[in-house]
Formats: sequence, structure tokens, C-alpha cells
Amino acid sequence: MATDQAGSDASEGDAYEQFENRVRRISNVGNAAGILRWDQEVVMPDEGTPARAQQLSTLSSLSHELLTADETGQLLDELEDTDLEDEQAAVVREIRRQYDRETSVPQELVEELSATASNAHPTWKQAREEDDFEQFAPTLEKLVELKREYAAHIDPDADPYAVLFADYEPYIDLETAERVLERLREKLVPLIDAIQESDADLATDAFAGEFDDDDQEALARDVLDSLGYDWDRGRLDTAPHPFSSGTQFDARVTTRFDEEDLLGSITSTVHEFGHANYTLGLPDEGYGTPLGEARDLSVHESQSRLWENHVGRSRPFWEHFLPVARERFPSLEDVTPEAAYEAANQVYDDNLIRVEADELTYHLHIVIRFEIERDLIRGDLDVSEVPQVWNDKYEEYLGVRPETDAEGCLQDIHWSHGDFGYFPTYSLGSVLAAQLYAAAEDDRGPFDEEIREGEFDDLNGWLREHIHQHGKHFVTPELIERATGEELTADYFLEYVESKYGDLYELEDY
Amino acid sequence: MATDQAGSDASEGDAYEQFENRVRRISNVGNAAGILRWDQEVVMPDEGTPARAQQLSTLSSLSHELLTADETGQLLDELEDTDLEDEQAAVVREIRRQYDRETSVPQELVEELSATASNAHPTWKQAREEDDFEQFAPTLEKLVELKREYAAHIDPDADPYAVLFADYEPYIDLETAERVLERLREKLVPLIDAIQESDADLATDAFAGEFDDDDQEALARDVLDSLGYDWDRGRLDTAPHPFSSGTQFDARVTTRFDEEDLLGSITSTVHEFGHANYTLGLPDEGYGTPLGEARDLSVHESQSRLWENHVGRSRPFWEHFLPVARERFPSLEDVTPEAAYEAANQVYDDNLIRVEADELTYHLHIVIRFEIERDLIRGDLDVSEVPQVWNDKYEEYLGVRPETDAEGCLQDIHWSHGDFGYFPTYSLGSVLAAQLYAAAEDDRGPFDEEIREGEFDDLNGWLREHIHQHGKHFVTPELIERATGEELTADYFLEYVESKYGDLYELEDY
Repeated sequence: MATDQAGSDASEGDAYEQFENRVRRISNVGNAAGILRWDQEVVMPDEGTPARAQQLSTLSSLSHELLTADETGQLLDELEDTDLEDEQAAVVREIRRQYDRETSVPQELVEELSATASNAHPTWKQAREEDDFEQFAPTLEKLVELKREYAAHIDPDADPYAVLFADYEPYIDLETAERVLERLREKLVPLIDAIQESDADLATDAFAGEFDDDDQEALARDVLDSLGYDWDRGRLDTAPHPFSSGTQFDARVTTRFDEEDLLGSITSTVHEFGHANYTLGLPDEGYGTPLGEARDLSVHESQSRLWENHVGRSRPFWEHFLPVARERFPSLEDVTPEAAYEAANQVYDDNLIRVEADELTYHLHIVIRFEIERDLIRGDLDVSEVPQVWNDKYEEYLGVRPETDAEGCLQDIHWSHGDFGYFPTYSLGSVLAAQLYAAAEDDRGPFDEEIREGEFDDLNGWLREHIHQHGKHFVTPELIERATGEELTADYFLEYVESKYGDLYELEDY
Repeated sequence: MATDQAGSDASEGDAYEQFENRVRRISNVGNAAGILRWDQEVVMPDEGTPARAQQLSTLSSLSHELLTADETGQLLDELEDTDLEDEQAAVVREIRRQYDRETSVPQELVEELSATASNAHPTWKQAREEDDFEQFAPTLEKLVELKREYAAHIDPDADPYAVLFADYEPYIDLETAERVLERLREKLVPLIDAIQESDADLATDAFAGEFDDDDQEALARDVLDSLGYDWDRGRLDTAPHPFSSGTQFDARVTTRFDEEDLLGSITSTVHEFGHANYTLGLPDEGYGTPLGEARDLSVHESQSRLWENHVGRSRPFWEHFLPVARERFPSLEDVTPEAAYEAANQVYDDNLIRVEADELTYHLHIVIRFEIERDLIRGDLDVSEVPQVWNDKYEEYLGVRPETDAEGCLQDIHWSHGDFGYFPTYSLGSVLAAQLYAAAEDDRGPFDEEIREGEFDDLNGWLREHIHQHGKHFVTPELIERATGEELTADYFLEYVESKYGDLYELEDY
């Protein structure tokens, strides 16, 4: 029964058919779990959790068992000795990688990690509430230790942080990521200094005031309409922590509304549109295999950041969108596009919180987390030193020093989930967004005029052609090379921010 | 790997633990599929269907493989030779039954049936639209033939219709069901005749007029509030065909709104509340096994009918609820509770459509379908004869003759799904509802006064104690016997309708 249990019809068809059938089942189980998680965040009644947790745990173990079954390994071995079409080989490459990682880690360790992480969450939350790092430290130590163990199972000879990073970004090597982040630190620290010393006074109060939630929701739908969101394959709902999820047939967006933060709901909606729009650009015929799945975190984030920043924070966007916004909020009548543009791009000089950061300082928040988690995992830094090092780095890079751990090293949820190696993908996403946007403008001419007209098909067409339609066909470096003609580089992002903020803040040397 | 694939940890714990672990996984997969189906009916975007169909098909084959795995059979054999606790034995009994049925039918036949049914649906729909039974006849023949084959695999020596009936109602034998339906026919035909000859003129226009959908939704929430629905474990949405689904942690209700049919949305909401309220009464600790699952279709329908008819169509309910309804719809100001009661209980003398039938004629619609499908499956009736026989029976039992097959034998979706043996459970549900309500009043005194006060805890407490909390612990006849002291009987339903309608229509002999 083993075969039948793990992959139905595995006895029929040739090896690739059997393999693809098995891959589709794994994908369908994963997509079903995605719907259950969306439901949990968006519509599930409060007391549904105990049953939902069991349903998700069963689906995840079934998916693990399908992937790590002997039959999967046998089919992979057989197919790797077979002459396959290019796309078939890509599917085999992606599943082989997952198979090798999941089979190399003992199930007991996986379960201990997930149990430790579940318990870590409330501990972290309380420690943050009580501003008491000591409460969280032992749990953090345990998570670091388990993650090092986990990395050693996957590759005992490799840098454990590189192994963990590869869980989120499998095909961009850590050296490249480090080079990019290092470059951001070198260039952004002086740029931010210059901005903080600048006398330019930006109009920052364009969106001051209170804005009704229902009108904000109507405006969020206007945003999605105007960007070309396909409502026949998606929907908009609210969630405490906005996210988007789904497949090319059903890619849903969530956002949040704060009566005092209209700008935040607009930028968050545009950001999530970027994610969903990538998913909707994946080929229908690829559904169920990696050919119909998005590339990894950095590429996904490049799509949300491209729309949020290069489109949504641009002058022409506000020239186009402000009249739309005025329809919902007549109080914006006297706001000029320039004022909206400046409000959407102000750089805070005293920001300690990553999720409240602007487009520029954001990356120093990331660099700090990256340097700390890398040293923790490599054993070069002790958990007890984290608060001190954190605060020193904030002072050095951003010129601000947290007075509490709550607004310092306890602010993010990621480490409490055992997510070490995740943070860099945020900055890599922004860097790639700038590189892709430059390449797109290089191909199709500048988009400003079109954006001013509320016309986004040309830009989106380029993204569909060069990124979305390829799914996981190409590994990330090849995808980037084919789309931009270059390997991943911070140059375009730095040019973009230096010219944008040099102009906004009237900086002489930029 | 077989064991690990079919039931993780199947190597740990004693046989019952291994077995229960496997049962919980099957249940979790089924409940996950339930959420996917709710999502599809209620919130899924239009074009999500292709992916959803694949996700559901994968979950259903995984569930089938877990159930029919060799390990399941071995554990069942071992446990049946073990001295088990009463509740454990009940779980083994329920899974054994499912295991025997699913292992006895070849997977090819299951797949042919499901493929034929999927294709039958559009064929039936078009035939109905074009009022052309001939178009549907060949498909119906094929479905009948496949279902006879299916029944023969399960028990070659049994009456095939009895085998199919047991798919929906496993523990009530067909003889009992036939005896009940026969009794309904004998007694209801003359009662309905008498009503049709009665001169009593009921106030039937209490709910005439147009009623805004949003206000109807607010009122539907009032209905659920007043019946005691637990919003922390449920929600209300709209769906074209109202249903309820979920678990004891999350039991959701859907309803529909028609501006010209306020009464319909109220009664449909009360009906679905009855289903969800049963689910919410299942024991939390039983989640994932049959001990935490509802008994079969007739018992489930008894819960919806009890609330819809014995509560929602009663005089005291309208004395309680009309003032609530007036808050939403001031136009109801001049409607009296008596007029609302009469409108909610009028018997139509020219009704051809089951889903539009009243509480009384409804059962003759069922009897007709039951007699026809039984004879089809037994081979005593040819598909080509169905329209003629259908129309003759309508004339004989209800005194009306359909002029078209669209409003005749093509009106219901069930046969196009291959659902033969399902219809009787609707009437058995009403019959059981009356029997349970009588037993509850016998134990707790009449509920009229409480219902008039909008107080339903006493009635619901009795249902929790005697029905809901037992899940599938007892087989249906034992559950009924323990709750009512008798076996299933039509007596209480007939007493109820004869006194209710005898009074409403001023019938001398009733």
C-alpha cells in the first residue's frame, strides 16, 4: 500500500508522470493549508483555534510524509539519470532540494523546534510587554542551539547561518547577500546623516487627521482597481497583520485600517497588491508544480516593494491617485500631489521601530538584525550580549539609542519563531526591486507618464514577461540575469535613493 | 514507510492509540476539506474553481488511502479481539463500517461514479432548462446502473436500495423507514384532502411586501442571537443554497435573502441554526473521532426540523419574535402574532415543487421520490417510465399534475449526483423531530411559556443531554430509544400535524 498511500496512481504512467502526480498532491495539500491559514486570520471564529491547529498539523505531516517517502527518493534518482525536458528538470531540481533538506533533519528535531517555537511566542510576548529581555533569553538560547543543530544535519561542513539563510533564499548565496547589505550600510549611514542635518522642511502633514474606516476600505478597493487587480481571482479583507496568500487562480489581499493613518493603509495595500500580482502572473498550466509557484522570499518581496515604493511612493502616482482619494475624502482637497509625495517619503530621524521605518532607514534596521543573528548562529555572539550590541549598533548606524529592550531587541516576532536568516530577504527585495524597475524602464522607456495617467499595463506586462510567468523554472540568479542582464547588485537601489532623497532634502553632495 | 505515510507515530503507543491517531488524521483531513468547501460556497473568487477542485480531490484521495490502508484493517482486527472501553468500542464500530464499505468498492468504480456524476450535473441542468427529460435519461440510466454495481460490491445478497440507503442512514433499517413513509402517505393524503376542502381562510399575507436585504441580514442575526447561537464558535454568511458546516469549535451558518420572501429567510435561518446547534453540542474532547461527530442524516435533520417547525412555526415563537422583527421592519406593525403564525403554516393546494412545499405536503413530495428511486434501483421501474409515474403519483397523492418535467421529475439535483436513498432521511428527520420534542416536553413540561419569553435553554439543554453530547457513541436506534423510551415512530409527528392543522383549518374529524 505504501505507494498508493503516498502518491495515488504512482503505478501508472512513466516515471515523470508518477513524479509530477506526487508533486501535485504535495502542492495541493500545501495550498489547502494556505486556505485554512487565510481562514484563521480573516474569518475564523475566536474559539476555532484548537480544531484548526490539529487540521494544519495533520496537513503538514501528510505533506512531509509525501515528500520524504521512499518513492519520492527513488523517482528523483531515476529522473536524474533520465534525459528530461528543461522544465521537467527544473521541477526535479526544486523537489530534490526540498527532499534532501527534509530527509536530512530528524523528525524529532523538527517537532522539538516547532514545539519550542510555539512556546517561545507567548514568552517573547510577555517579555516584550514587561520590557524584560532576561525572561526571553533562555528561550532564545534554546532556539539558537536547536537551529544550529538543524543546520548541522543539513550540512555539517557549511556555515550554519548560510544554511539557515538558504531556507528562505535557496539560490542567492550568502556572500552575495552580505556584500549587498554591507554596501547598503556604507552608503545609507552617511546619506541618512546628511538628511538629518538638512534644513529642507518637507510637508509631512498632508494626511494628518482622522479617516473613516469604511471610506478607507472603499479607497483600498480604488487602489486595487486602479492598479489592475483581478477581482475574479482575488478579494480584499482586513487582518491585524496584512498579508496576501493564494495561487494564480485565487490570490487574496488583506490590509488594515487605522483612522489616523490613511497613508499607511494605502501603502500597505499597494505592497500587498505587489505580492498578489506576482502570484496572479504565475502560469495557470503550472499550477501544482514549482513551474506555477513563485520564486523565493527576495523575489516575492521585490514585487511588493517595486509597487509600494517605485510606483506608490512616486510623484506621478500621487498626481494620478490624489484625485481618486479626494473622491472618498474631500478633506484632502487642498493637499497637493507634491505634498502627498513628500509626506509619503519623509525620513524619520528618531525611528527605533522597523515596521514604522521609512524606505531608507528601514535597511539599517535590517542590517543590524542581520549582523546580530549571523553572529548568534555562528557562535560569535552570546545571547546575553544581544541588548547591548543591539543598542550600540542603533546608536552607530542610526544615531538613536533605544531606552528599553521592548523598543529594542524584543520588538520583532521573527526570532521567537526561530526564523534566523529571514531578515536579509527584506532588503534584498528592495534592492532587486530597484534593479528590475531600472531594467524595465530601460526596455520600455520611463513609466512616469503612464503612471500619471493611471496606466500600469506596460510595467506589469514587463514583470509578467520577465519574472512572473517563469515561476520556479529558473534559479534566482539566472532569473535576475535574464531579466536585467546583470547579477544582483545594490547599484540601482543606491542610485534611486540617492537621487530621490538628495532631491527631496536638497542635499548638495547627492 | 507505509505505516509512517498512513498514520504518523503509528509505531508508538498501544494499538488503540495508534488507531485513534489514524482516525484523528482522517477526521482532520475531512474537516479541512469542509473548510475548503465552505470557502468555495461563500468567499472564493469566481475563477478559483480549477485549483479548488484539485485540492479537494487530493484531500479526498488521501483520506480514502488513510482509511483503507492495510494498517487500518490490521488495527481493526486486533482491536476487535481486545477488551475495549465502551466508547473505544464505538469508535472501532464506526470506523470498521466505513472501512468495510470503502475497501469493498473498487477505486475504479468510485472514480467512474464521481466522473459520471460531475458530467451528469450540467446535463441535468440543461435538460431541466429545456424541459427535456430525454436529454437526461441516458445519464440517469448510467447512474442507476453504476449505483447498482456499487451496491453489489458492498453486499451482493442485499436489496441494492437498502445498501444505498445505508450510505446516508447506516443504522435505521430500510423496513423501518418504509413503514414510516407508508404511514405518512396513508395519513397525510386524507388530511391534505380535508385541508383543501376546508373553508377556513387563513391570513396568509402577513409577510407580503418587500424587505431590504441588509435589514433581513440584521434580523437573521437577531434570530440567531435569540436562539442562543454562540458567535465565538460560528458565523453567519449568505450562500445561494443555504447550508451549515463545521465542527464543535466552529459551526457556521449560511442563509439567503429574497426581498420578497422575509418569512423564507427567517425559517431557513432557524433551520440551519438547528443543524449548527447540534454540531456545537458535540463534546469538545471527542473532536477528531466519531465520539465528537454528529449521528447521521436523519438525526441531523431532526435537529433542524425541530427548531424550524416545532419552535419557529409555533404560536409562542411568533408572540416572542414578532416584536423583534418589528424593530427591523416597522411595516410589520399591524401584523398580529396569530397572522404571522397562520402565514408560517399555510398549506398550499397547488404546490409542485418540493423546496417550496409546506411542512405537510413536503412529505408526499418525499414519498413520491422514495417510491420511484427505490423501484429504479431494484430494477422494478425503467428510467423511461419516470416522468409518467412521477406525474401520476403527484395526481394521486397531491391532487396536482405537473405539466412539464422541469416542474416534475427534473426539479431536484439529487439523482444527478447519484444520490439514491437520500430523500427518505428528510421525512425521517421530521418524524424524529416530533418524537424528540414530545419526549422533551414529557421530561421538562411544555415549552410554550418559555418560547413566548424567548427562553430556549431548557429545550436546548434537553437536546444537549439526550442527543448532542453523545456524538456517534450510540447507534441511531439506541440513541432514539434512550432519548424517547421508544423506537422510531411516526405517531408523534402525525399527532402533531393532525392537531395543529386540524385546529388551523377547523377540520371536524381532526
